[in-house]
Amino acid sequence: MAAKTFISALFLCLILSSTSILSHSYNYYPQIKPCKELVFYFHDILYKGNNRNNATAVIVGAPEWGNKTAVAQPFNFGDLVVFDDPITLDNNLHSPPVGRAQGMYLYDQQNTYNAWLSFSFVFNSTEHKGSLNFAGADPLLNKTRDISVIGGTGDFFMARGIATLMTDAFEGDVYFRLRADIKLYECWK
Amino acid sequence: MAAKTFISALFLCLILSSTSILSHSYNYYPQIKPCKELVFYFHDILYKGNNRNNATAVIVGAPEWGNKTAVAQPFNFGDLVVFDDPITLDNNLHSPPVGRAQGMYLYDQQNTYNAWLSFSFVFNSTEHKGSLNFAGADPLLNKTRDISVIGGTGDFFMARGIATLMTDAFEGDVYFRLRADIKLYECWK
Amino acid sequence: MAAKTFISALFLCLILSSTSILSHSYNYYPQIKPCKELVFYFHDILYKGNNRNNATAVIVGAPEWGNKTAVAQPFNFGDLVVFDDPITLDNNLHSPPVGRAQGMYLYDQQNTYNAWLSFSFVFNSTEHKGSLNFAGADPLLNKTRDISVIGGTGDFFMARGIATLMTDAFEGDVYFRLRADIKLYECWK
Repeated sequence: MAAKTFISALFLCLILSSTSILSHSYNYYPQIKPCKELVFYFHDILYKGNNRNNATAVIVGAPEWGNKTAVAQPFNFGDLVVFDDPITLDNNLHSPPVGRAQGMYLYDQQNTYNAWLSFSFVFNSTEHKGSLNFAGADPLLNKTRDISVIGGTGDFFMARGIATLMTDAFEGDVYFRLRADIKLYECWK
Repeated sequence: MAAKTFISALFLCLILSSTSILSHSYNYYPQIKPCKELVFYFHDILYKGNNRNNATAVIVGAPEWGNKTAVAQPFNFGDLVVFDDPITLDNNLHSPPVGRAQGMYLYDQQNTYNAWLSFSFVFNSTEHKGSLNFAGADPLLNKTRDISVIGGTGDFFMARGIATLMTDAFEGDVYFRLRADIKLYECWK
Repeated sequence: MAAKTFISALFLCLILSSTSILSHSYNYYPQIKPCKELVFYFHDILYKGNNRNNATAVIVGAPEWGNKTAVAQPFNFGDLVVFDDPITLDNNLHSPPVGRAQGMYLYDQQNTYNAWLSFSFVFNSTEHKGSLNFAGADPLLNKTRDISVIGGTGDFFMARGIATLMTDAFEGDVYFRLRADIKLYECWK
């Protein structure tokens, strides 16, 4: 009987211990739900030489054949843009911003529209304080594009995840609006 | 008695197993102490057209209204700067550097001073070999600003954490010194 | 006897539980094998004013003393380059590309060759779909240089690791080929 007790207890230990291992490893597979999901829109108005007051983005680097007041041809290839775009909760440019999307993007392909992004979402609203940092390729003709959430601060301390970008509006070379579906898989807060 | 033994053993297993779960999860909350803390200063001397020999940073991108030998007005908006700044252990520009802060920063706001940083600390001292990589927004009028440690190599293999930046000195447009309080929360080495 | 049983079971619980802790912590030390290893080559052909058709990289930012059709002297210091380079499985520029290396690099040192990289590998082959994002310093005269894998998408969902870069070929200012040995230590997929 004592022996049986011993074995049973041992057996249960094995189950419990392995559970504790699995319950951790599980965190490392995408099947799990994200620990946080957020949806934002940001709005980019490019400086074209005559709209400095309402521009939120400006070309600061261009190829030999480009300039600072018009996108390079073809495909904006070689343009490097610094931006400070309002972030809104809906797709309305005039909604009260909940933060700013700040950083840079560049166009890096000669034969199609393709961008590369490196920027931060900086929040200062009642809902969110802190920042999320992003980096990744943005093949903007694709319906959706995934970039990496490489870190965060404040409410998003040490966050990691994926942001899925969608072009929600595109008006010539002057205005575009991106929808960002952010899924965090590492949440420390 | 045997039954009681069994239950007690089982009970203890539960405690031990859950402890092992908690002891891990706990790592995922900022309450814990960082696994490594470091404090450095780095020193940035901007090229203004006449100080090439001692400049550590140079404007390489500027808006239409800017140029490469003076910051753009207002608020340096649109300037993109490449830098290679000495890192010191104290706030003295002339202390022996323990490494170099290398990468880029840009000014992305039209109505205030706001920068965005993407750079590395490259160490090659007796104390540290390897690098730490950073990215984040730097609203430089705030007393402290948090950016992300997005990775590391060598002694800082796979590191992640937060760097809190403080402007330790600021002399016009030519020289500034930042203090970086680095707290790593993921240490693999 | 029952007591002895109890103690033995308890002792085993301790071993098992601590095992489960270690087996996790162990993941956090580089001694372990990477969870994924990849080797790629990418090929960079810089635009020099007369090779637009086959160029894969273009200077978009330069210091006051530089220009967009030739590297700045000395040491390319201050040049910022946007690139879209083919990725191949071997060192042959003309092998079928398995993806594109897209992003930017800059030269940030006045007294030697030193670059800083921020880019993505974008895969769209039968073998790999998705992207890996990189950042780090590239002291290109060193035989090997480590940069950080700061995130990934698709097949490389949430990946982190280290990429070791080697200059596999260098032809003046026009062409270079890098070999990237990628070791992932965080694999979620």
